[in-house]
Amino acid sequence: MKNITVIGAGLVGSLLSIYLAKRGHKVQIFERRPDMRKEKIIAGRSINLALSDRGWKGLEGVGIADEIRKIAIPMHGRMIHDIEGKTNFQPYGKEGQAIYSVSRGDLNKRLMDLAEQQNGTQIFFNQRCVDVDLEKATATFADENGNTTKNTSDMIFGTDGAYSELRHRMMFTDRFDYSQDYLKEGYKELNIPPAENGGWRMEKNALHIWPRGKFMLIALPNFDGSFTCTLFFPFEGEYSFSSLDTKEKMLSFFNKTFPDAVELMPTLEHDYFHNPTSSLAIMRCFPWSYKDKAMLLGDAAHAIVPFYGQGMNCGFEDCTVLQQIMEQESDWETIFKKAESSRKPNSDAIAELALQNFIEMRDLVSDEKFVLRKKIEAKLSAEFPYKWLPLYSMVTFSDIPYSTAWNEGKRQDTVMQKVMEIPEIEKIWNTEEGFKQIAKTALG
Amino acid sequence: MKNITVIGAGLVGSLLSIYLAKRGHKVQIFERRPDMRKEKIIAGRSINLALSDRGWKGLEGVGIADEIRKIAIPMHGRMIHDIEGKTNFQPYGKEGQAIYSVSRGDLNKRLMDLAEQQNGTQIFFNQRCVDVDLEKATATFADENGNTTKNTSDMIFGTDGAYSELRHRMMFTDRFDYSQDYLKEGYKELNIPPAENGGWRMEKNALHIWPRGKFMLIALPNFDGSFTCTLFFPFEGEYSFSSLDTKEKMLSFFNKTFPDAVELMPTLEHDYFHNPTSSLAIMRCFPWSYKDKAMLLGDAAHAIVPFYGQGMNCGFEDCTVLQQIMEQESDWETIFKKAESSRKPNSDAIAELALQNFIEMRDLVSDEKFVLRKKIEAKLSAEFPYKWLPLYSMVTFSDIPYSTAWNEGKRQDTVMQKVMEIPEIEKIWNTEEGFKQIAKTALG
Repeated sequence: MKNITVIGAGLVGSLLSIYLAKRGHKVQIFERRPDMRKEKIIAGRSINLALSDRGWKGLEGVGIADEIRKIAIPMHGRMIHDIEGKTNFQPYGKEGQAIYSVSRGDLNKRLMDLAEQQNGTQIFFNQRCVDVDLEKATATFADENGNTTKNTSDMIFGTDGAYSELRHRMMFTDRFDYSQDYLKEGYKELNIPPAENGGWRMEKNALHIWPRGKFMLIALPNFDGSFTCTLFFPFEGEYSFSSLDTKEKMLSFFNKTFPDAVELMPTLEHDYFHNPTSSLAIMRCFPWSYKDKAMLLGDAAHAIVPFYGQGMNCGFEDCTVLQQIMEQESDWETIFKKAESSRKPNSDAIAELALQNFIEMRDLVSDEKFVLRKKIEAKLSAEFPYKWLPLYSMVTFSDIPYSTAWNEGKRQDTVMQKVMEIPEIEKIWNTEEGFKQIAKTALG
Repeated sequence: MKNITVIGAGLVGSLLSIYLAKRGHKVQIFERRPDMRKEKIIAGRSINLALSDRGWKGLEGVGIADEIRKIAIPMHGRMIHDIEGKTNFQPYGKEGQAIYSVSRGDLNKRLMDLAEQQNGTQIFFNQRCVDVDLEKATATFADENGNTTKNTSDMIFGTDGAYSELRHRMMFTDRFDYSQDYLKEGYKELNIPPAENGGWRMEKNALHIWPRGKFMLIALPNFDGSFTCTLFFPFEGEYSFSSLDTKEKMLSFFNKTFPDAVELMPTLEHDYFHNPTSSLAIMRCFPWSYKDKAMLLGDAAHAIVPFYGQGMNCGFEDCTVLQQIMEQESDWETIFKKAESSRKPNSDAIAELALQNFIEMRDLVSDEKFVLRKKIEAKLSAEFPYKWLPLYSMVTFSDIPYSTAWNEGKRQDTVMQKVMEIPEIEKIWNTEEGFKQIAKTALG
């Protein structure tokens, strides 16, 4: 039994604590923010999230998947909105497969409740980590009045997010690789309220996308009938947060660019000028651990962009993998080393895939050739399920390591390029003869 | 006239201060270490450095190039030592061209002297920067007893090296890109003392290299007759700092691998086990400035590996370029923005080139085909000086922007690959007919 300090009671910190406590460890969690179960606070980067297979697996491991499923809305595919407001549905996978929109706050609260129900686990709120002595596994926390407490335990887990204080301290240890890379685009959340009867004003079981080339608007359904929209948009340039700086310019742009969305957004003007414009960054580092004293997990170790909906799912998978390693090993330095070397190539892979998916979502989904390729891949997968699993499905509907999925995806790209060069592919792909030729080209 | 704070009285900080003071600004320099002119201290990363054209240009701008030249030793080329101790000289450029070995300490002291001679310029020693308020251009310094002073000025320059405190503060501003990447290799300095008559025990006018594939030993001449040797060596693995952990293993390895060097190193055992093993990192960031309040230059903005001997030269060129921009512009935010956008692509280019040159130095210089290519390039350059300037010469003997040199180098690689495929190239390159064919292939 170890005394363990966890920095951060966010999604990954709370889930990790449950896993650790279930193994008999005494866990103390220190959370920077007030208790979101008592006070209404803005709890992180986004209002809702897409749960997919890796995330569910993490929740199943602590027995609360079924409960969360009740407050999750399945999204079976992308609903693409063109510039005239016409829509076109593109399924994510096979019949019945979906990603699930959940409220970040509700999920986090439920995980905190469960963490606190574990023997010996406590959460301390309003405790901002301000210093860490790695050698001694001592963390110093400051409360809202600046009073500091020092907490020494056997080891510290840093699940304190993209701007992790633990990682910041590790940055000054020798040979610690680190990078933070910001995108030229930022994001802003906007709102579509519920219909007057309390229902949803658009198709509920889809992730809505208004792809516009260099930027996009997306919307995910909430349980209360509303949608949370996110505008991903350049900071600078002709169409950018900095150029749309008056009501007139903003409304004229939205009316022209997202006409069907604007109709559903009564508070657009207020939301646009009052909600913050947030930046998007990719953070990478290595190692993730310091001796047997400290380990980073979740966004603290690998903050990624949100375009594959995998940030939380990847963080939950960190917990699942750590749990498997803890079952096999007892030496903590070995556990940490095995965990970081297992997870690092996978977090690097999903970081790349997430970046690529921005281009897919904002641009390619409205490209006919791309849509056709997706249809052909879906058919290949339906006919030859053991030979062809599309990249999106590997990432979202399986727990194939992200790095394997990434490599397989690159191979599929090469193969599908040949398939798409078959003469008159758009006419013949759904004929018996044509599909035979495709299968031969794709599967050999 | 502005009140300017410069953090760091190293090579770049001292030179920058002279440039600023000569333009009429009041400069206060804060240096972490004691005054090296009064106390014997270890002053940074290496004992000697190679000055080349860009560095000389920076010194010429403040009028002390001639004085420094008197204490600099020209190195006209590489002296390659094979495993049997046989040597082979490879010139760096044309007759008369050389890079110059200078003592880091002597150069730094001279620059400090000159800085202090400028009207209004002061250097404060034992002042470690511990905090910066960017908005107010206030820097806080702690002395050796922990007493802090706050210094507010019109603007702050951070020339505080690879582990810059100013950069560290800028890291937390939104959309600040940053990376630190460590090499798998580290380095250790060793010593070859002067001969008994006070002369040099090896050829003085060369940079000596013992290339051994994955690692290397190099030696640069010092003015006192000694050579400072540097072993660049993996941290881990079969032959590594961690494997050579006893006197026997170390000596057996050195005797086998660097036999002729060992003979000249009476203090090898002491040096190897007492001198520190240092790591090698590449640091990149952007932007380099914050409004009109702060700017990073030198290693603080772009720490690179030492294999092209360009770290100081690039930092001095930062000063030259800033000086040119200050002559054209008066608004400081504009000056900073122009300087960073001019220098960033060039510092990125030399970071890459320096990394590539490690492979060239430790491996390729002992490759016959590579050596032949160098000879052919030298001949092309001699015969067609306006059409062919080898990459090494562009970097070292010109002030062509590093990024231009890098691109031109890549083009030359492609062209020279074709040249080296000419049948029997090793026999015909120096014949009239053969060289005609080479010139046609290379120059079109």
